[in-house]
Amino acid sequence: MQVRQAGEFAVIQQLRGIFDTKRTDLLVANGDDAAVWQPDGPVVATIDSVVAGVDWLEDRTPAAAIGHRAAAVNLSDLAAMGAHPRLLLLALELPGETDLADLLTAARGLKALADKHDAVVVGGDLGFSPGPARWTVTALGTLQGPPMRRDGVQPGDVIWLMGAVGQAALGLAALQWGDDQPALVAAHLWPQPLVQAGLRLRDAGVRAAIDVSDGLGLDAQRLAQASGVDLHLDLPRPVWVTPEIERWLIARGLDWREACAGGGDDYALLCSASVALDLRHLGAQPIGEARAGSGRVHLRIGGIAQAVQGFRHGD
Amino acid sequence: MQVRQAGEFAVIQQLRGIFDTKRTDLLVANGDDAAVWQPDGPVVATIDSVVAGVDWLEDRTPAAAIGHRAAAVNLSDLAAMGAHPRLLLLALELPGETDLADLLTAARGLKALADKHDAVVVGGDLGFSPGPARWTVTALGTLQGPPMRRDGVQPGDVIWLMGAVGQAALGLAALQWGDDQPALVAAHLWPQPLVQAGLRLRDAGVRAAIDVSDGLGLDAQRLAQASGVDLHLDLPRPVWVTPEIERWLIARGLDWREACAGGGDDYALLCSASVALDLRHLGAQPIGEARAGSGRVHLRIGGIAQAVQGFRHGD
Repeated sequence: MQVRQAGEFAVIQQLRGIFDTKRTDLLVANGDDAAVWQPDGPVVATIDSVVAGVDWLEDRTPAAAIGHRAAAVNLSDLAAMGAHPRLLLLALELPGETDLADLLTAARGLKALADKHDAVVVGGDLGFSPGPARWTVTALGTLQGPPMRRDGVQPGDVIWLMGAVGQAALGLAALQWGDDQPALVAAHLWPQPLVQAGLRLRDAGVRAAIDVSDGLGLDAQRLAQASGVDLHLDLPRPVWVTPEIERWLIARGLDWREACAGGGDDYALLCSASVALDLRHLGAQPIGEARAGSGRVHLRIGGIAQAVQGFRHGD
Repeated sequence: MQVRQAGEFAVIQQLRGIFDTKRTDLLVANGDDAAVWQPDGPVVATIDSVVAGVDWLEDRTPAAAIGHRAAAVNLSDLAAMGAHPRLLLLALELPGETDLADLLTAARGLKALADKHDAVVVGGDLGFSPGPARWTVTALGTLQGPPMRRDGVQPGDVIWLMGAVGQAALGLAALQWGDDQPALVAAHLWPQPLVQAGLRLRDAGVRAAIDVSDGLGLDAQRLAQASGVDLHLDLPRPVWVTPEIERWLIARGLDWREACAGGGDDYALLCSASVALDLRHLGAQPIGEARAGSGRVHLRIGGIAQAVQGFRHGD
């Protein structure tokens, strides 16, 4: 059945059933004009949208991956601050012909990722309108210590990468072509926000971080510019570039270095810490250093210098 | 210039300039992965979108009224809870051909209403995509006392209306036809969320309220169903129905009673209080009572019974 046929109110009722929660920090949960929440620390707030045809391929994306993505992009922003996720608010704009069962599957995909990271969905908005489906999520988290910030990098700091970059953009290409690259496709379809890693990095004393959503080069540049330093980065060949994947890349005329430098949607964390901190036991990889400067990024990947240009959504 | 020509990052820079804030409860303001905020009480959170062609007439709406509306619909939800507005987050999805100057005017319209109610815009998201322009706002407020809730109506309570209903729907009609009805058109274009009134009602002891965004009948029904009571409402002829407006309504075949019962987007507050409370000094008008029941609404307007059916956005 199409959501238009079901009607706005019936769809809202079904979504509420999926997102129903009894969490005790919620004084008023779903179904009122607004939710009321007692936070357990300073509040971290972010908003981000994902749009059909821009952020996912409409005809090749499992419904659950759409809701997953809507949550992931926002949870990753909380991860980059070192925050505990708590609440998600969801505004959905859908074409009236959206299949109701697909929508509910997508909502369950969102809930599954929220559950994994202790977040609940409270409140929302639903509209039917022409144009592509758009999922807008606000994520609210709390801090139990100082946030990691973009402007906290000091000259002399070591730059660390947590998580992998480059896979998601290549996974999108593989999905478009129908190529059998399950690891890459999974990195595109099911990005994992590094929430626990963000908390551990913050607890270990990291004071500067950014999530790598628009490509390592561009997000490194944001970090450098916010902090007023230059970054000198040298990322070795990633372990995910197996001989098999490299053969596929060559056959398709693709370059893993370019994907690492400019591919988007990986949701790794790029962070900075004084040389006294060793973050390897947390799974982070040292990839360079900050020097006194003016916001420039010098990026080498696998030993070869790369132009710094990021993936810009919607450009 | 079109926003697509200006580029996403240049547009974001200009929007940040408009929304720049130094408020001391913001530990991290715009420009990071997320904002960090120290709330001064339990947090009230809501999200709502307004969409071109659905919520406003694309060719007859001043740009500033678009941003105003995006803030107003959310601030009204905070008003209905009795909350102090604090933060707004904005996710914008725009056609690439949107005029940049119009966008910035719209953003200033949003900021003007936010300023009026002590809210600041922190963080946001911008995308260009096909389909109608869509402004999604999350409003965060704080409570200095118990919230007004939809499920707080008790049998025997008096039902009060704060603000006017019916004008906005007729103003939309007047605007569509190009008719000279400035008071009605202003009610449609520049809805005023009753934030101060909501705070005063809460302070006076009101424990149940809803904002009337989808028509008096439908929102009364929501209040009745959430509280498990019947509502018997009898709204007298509103003062805004002047003889001049009535002549126009007759000429256009419109009915002010229907507009009061089912017209949307007025953002009045419908609330409930024990008979011991007199709210007239706050500007509220007693329009009925709650009785033991099962969520039904009996609605008379100007002495004539009205079917309860609301305006449903996007249906």
